[in-house]
Amino acid sequence: MALHGKNIVGGELSALGKTTFRAWAPGQGAAVEPPFTEALPEEVERAFEAAARAFSAYRQLEPGAVAAFLERIAAEIEAAGDELLQRASLETALPVDRLTGERARTTNQLKLFAALAREGSWVDARIDRAIPDRKPLPKPDVRRTLVPIGPVVVFGASNFPLAFSVAGGDTASALAAGCPVVVKANRAHPGTSELVGEAVRRAIAASGVPPGVFSLIQGDRREIGMGLVKHPVTRAVGFTGSLAGGRALFDAASRRPDPIPVYAEMGSVNPVFLLPGALGERAEAIAEGLKGSVTLGNGQFCTKPGVVAAAAGPGLDPFLAKLSALVAAQPCGTLLHKGIFQSYEKGVGDLAAVAGARRVAVSTAAADRGKTQVQAALFETDLATFLKEPRLREEVFGPSTLVVRCGSPADLEKVARAMEGHLTATIHGTPQDLKDHAGLVALLETKVGRLVFNGFPTGVEVCPSMTHGGPWPATTDAHFTSVGTAAIYRWARPVSYQNFPDEALPAELRNRNERRLWRLVDGKLTQDDLA
Amino acid sequence: MALHGKNIVGGELSALGKTTFRAWAPGQGAAVEPPFTEALPEEVERAFEAAARAFSAYRQLEPGAVAAFLERIAAEIEAAGDELLQRASLETALPVDRLTGERARTTNQLKLFAALAREGSWVDARIDRAIPDRKPLPKPDVRRTLVPIGPVVVFGASNFPLAFSVAGGDTASALAAGCPVVVKANRAHPGTSELVGEAVRRAIAASGVPPGVFSLIQGDRREIGMGLVKHPVTRAVGFTGSLAGGRALFDAASRRPDPIPVYAEMGSVNPVFLLPGALGERAEAIAEGLKGSVTLGNGQFCTKPGVVAAAAGPGLDPFLAKLSALVAAQPCGTLLHKGIFQSYEKGVGDLAAVAGARRVAVSTAAADRGKTQVQAALFETDLATFLKEPRLREEVFGPSTLVVRCGSPADLEKVARAMEGHLTATIHGTPQDLKDHAGLVALLETKVGRLVFNGFPTGVEVCPSMTHGGPWPATTDAHFTSVGTAAIYRWARPVSYQNFPDEALPAELRNRNERRLWRLVDGKLTQDDLA
Repeated sequence: MALHGKNIVGGELSALGKTTFRAWAPGQGAAVEPPFTEALPEEVERAFEAAARAFSAYRQLEPGAVAAFLERIAAEIEAAGDELLQRASLETALPVDRLTGERARTTNQLKLFAALAREGSWVDARIDRAIPDRKPLPKPDVRRTLVPIGPVVVFGASNFPLAFSVAGGDTASALAAGCPVVVKANRAHPGTSELVGEAVRRAIAASGVPPGVFSLIQGDRREIGMGLVKHPVTRAVGFTGSLAGGRALFDAASRRPDPIPVYAEMGSVNPVFLLPGALGERAEAIAEGLKGSVTLGNGQFCTKPGVVAAAAGPGLDPFLAKLSALVAAQPCGTLLHKGIFQSYEKGVGDLAAVAGARRVAVSTAAADRGKTQVQAALFETDLATFLKEPRLREEVFGPSTLVVRCGSPADLEKVARAMEGHLTATIHGTPQDLKDHAGLVALLETKVGRLVFNGFPTGVEVCPSMTHGGPWPATTDAHFTSVGTAAIYRWARPVSYQNFPDEALPAELRNRNERRLWRLVDGKLTQDDLA
Repeated sequence: MALHGKNIVGGELSALGKTTFRAWAPGQGAAVEPPFTEALPEEVERAFEAAARAFSAYRQLEPGAVAAFLERIAAEIEAAGDELLQRASLETALPVDRLTGERARTTNQLKLFAALAREGSWVDARIDRAIPDRKPLPKPDVRRTLVPIGPVVVFGASNFPLAFSVAGGDTASALAAGCPVVVKANRAHPGTSELVGEAVRRAIAASGVPPGVFSLIQGDRREIGMGLVKHPVTRAVGFTGSLAGGRALFDAASRRPDPIPVYAEMGSVNPVFLLPGALGERAEAIAEGLKGSVTLGNGQFCTKPGVVAAAAGPGLDPFLAKLSALVAAQPCGTLLHKGIFQSYEKGVGDLAAVAGARRVAVSTAAADRGKTQVQAALFETDLATFLKEPRLREEVFGPSTLVVRCGSPADLEKVARAMEGHLTATIHGTPQDLKDHAGLVALLETKVGRLVFNGFPTGVEVCPSMTHGGPWPATTDAHFTSVGTAAIYRWARPVSYQNFPDEALPAELRNRNERRLWRLVDGKLTQDDLA
């Protein structure tokens, strides 16, 4: 299938504008065909009109129909086959193997949210029955469920062209909740976005859901995305990207006449704490695991460990020696696009320029800068320098990390205390280490969304108990996660019904519990019908 | 007990400043003793230092100890006896009977959140067990619970000097979640605030919780509250009040270097829809109920019905005649303070000035304006005027309402469509009316947090299924409620633990489910231990 380069506006292809742009193939160091037509304001307007219209019908669809729609999207993405993988690889320089895995993750996410919608208990139905003779006032019958918030805007992320992009976790969870989605395609992978967008369009046609539930807006300029955030129909925004980008969207959304939430996952330094017992027992194994985590996907993961606080002890020097050797041997990697390349080059340059920090290892291979290739890098500093220099605590997106030599357990806590909010923190320790550093664990609980023990933070399991979120600046709202089934709660809000006749209630709140949902009835969880 | 007029700063009384202010007794039209000392920045600083320190210990307290603390606050408020009720009545002009009921609501809320904390399943514990041999990658063990977000700021509301003030729903839910609270006393009832603050202080001393979990900041100027919102330690804000006030706090919080959430409940017009069947059957009864709801607490409820869309039919004129008579007979009421008085006078003046709207009834009794007394008022308009004039759709806080004469069912939907977000919408109808107006119900679901059938929106039941919230401008965040047990979720965020040893996990995530919490284990709700 040839790429058409058009926007998808409420089920229709549309390319009214004259401004076009091409994707950049980082592995070739060249722009590639075809041209993509940037959406005009009138096309954006039509997308939102279609979304608003679709919302009325879509939010009242049977859960089974929503689930079937999501499953059909998954099937259509699988059917897009090698063409999708090849185009994604061309636009991102990510290897086809990695993208094959990411595609499985993407379709699994869609199926997981389909199952969540079909089972249905996620709506957190609650029923408090009337007590007409309660004194001093009668108690009314009150029942509540969650309803979708309305049309939402999702920004495709550059580093997961499938799993966090057009039909990624944000879109899957929003559609599962009953919200139409207007996607802003990431400008770095417009062709991949189109192929996935077309898969969604085929699923819409096959499922009979209103075409307005999905639009795909192409564009190379920031203003396009800002326009989506400011549009009056938009009820919320999902975003994965940089702190600067997330902050700009958050500010625009907060300054609307009617502010709306922006759920921005803005990355993180993901500190790792190496406790003395663990370092003494398995310094080399930790170095190997850490190097793998730092360089996975060329370090372009939100959960890449960027700071490693290592306790003094006999394991520290062997650990550093091993990690240095591994980093030196690491081949150069091609980054996703020129923006990330430039900011990585600046980031490692800034680290090297800090007095008291030094670069202890770098890939020995030469990097082809014309193809946005970079060398992996390892830095080292001492605690005093780390605490004094804020730039050492900032994210460098790409394959680099910084080891902070710490003395006592108290030093590790000082590192933790100096950090802002993060997606994750990781601790390597023996059971005895954990007991000796209970204060560190307690401190990290107040700073992050996920604590990893004797593992590495990259690789985010998609499951009900996952939290991919955390205090600012990891995200704009630590109450929510963008990975796992709980991600659906970003797109829903509670509505209560007081003294409604049974037949006028939403199905999940009626006396007869037809779908055997878990419901909180008079304070007790039950799957029973009401008497 | 004589009022001391001081701030409570982490358990200590403090009055370092020289600026004082007195409460105004609206029923007397005079300021009353004693002077209250406005907090200085250094006292605010100390309050937050104490809160931050207290947080470390308080968040790790056993749930039973938290529950006992909340119950003790309730007991101490009851023990404050008549003195509290008298002072609250003096400062608000609300009758002692009403305040007695509100005190019961306040202590019941504290006990409800104590029970919630003690039972413990609110933390939404989730466990996904490892599958080490899963292909292509092993599945890790991931478990998540909710943790308190940190110290929060609560603004006392003027219209509920007990139930939404110093130890009201916001404070009770935050303390139950494990968050220290810094309360900004409402400047209209500083003495009531002090008496309740002292009750909390006694409860702290008796319960052995860290004194920093509670501070009470007095002040007459807006800057004091703004300073609390901007303080780096503050993690979230609870507020009930005006749209202008809530928006100002929201803007300040959003512009912080690290934005924090403001949960502001900013009131609402609470539209009522009178369907033709119901009006035909019981026009007079509806008029009586509506008049009671409009004038309850002198119309100073966030849920006061401010717009009544009434369907044409034989019931409409009798309804209006009855409502007019009741409003004319309504005694004048003393409003809470001069600010509300002035804005009510302006609000009803503005309504009367709209061409196409007319005042059809007003209390015949004369109002003593020096005592902030006002007359109840009833306005009427037609659909075209209502749709044309935005000011007819704005909240007038106080005992007035506006009837919109509608023609067809489609006209009622036009009214609904023209409205912004609200806390509530009310429908009076027969079962047949509901069937004939299913579109109206579906539309209102997208606009409000609570739908009331054949009742009135004032009187908000405190229970698990209550939603006291709704889309902007009813609140700043429609995902949450400020009444009922779900209010606790404003103050908590998820944290996941990956591959943690059982003994290092929080108690609620360990294999042995000692407290028999409901937990989502591998996707299934259960109270069982893990094998």
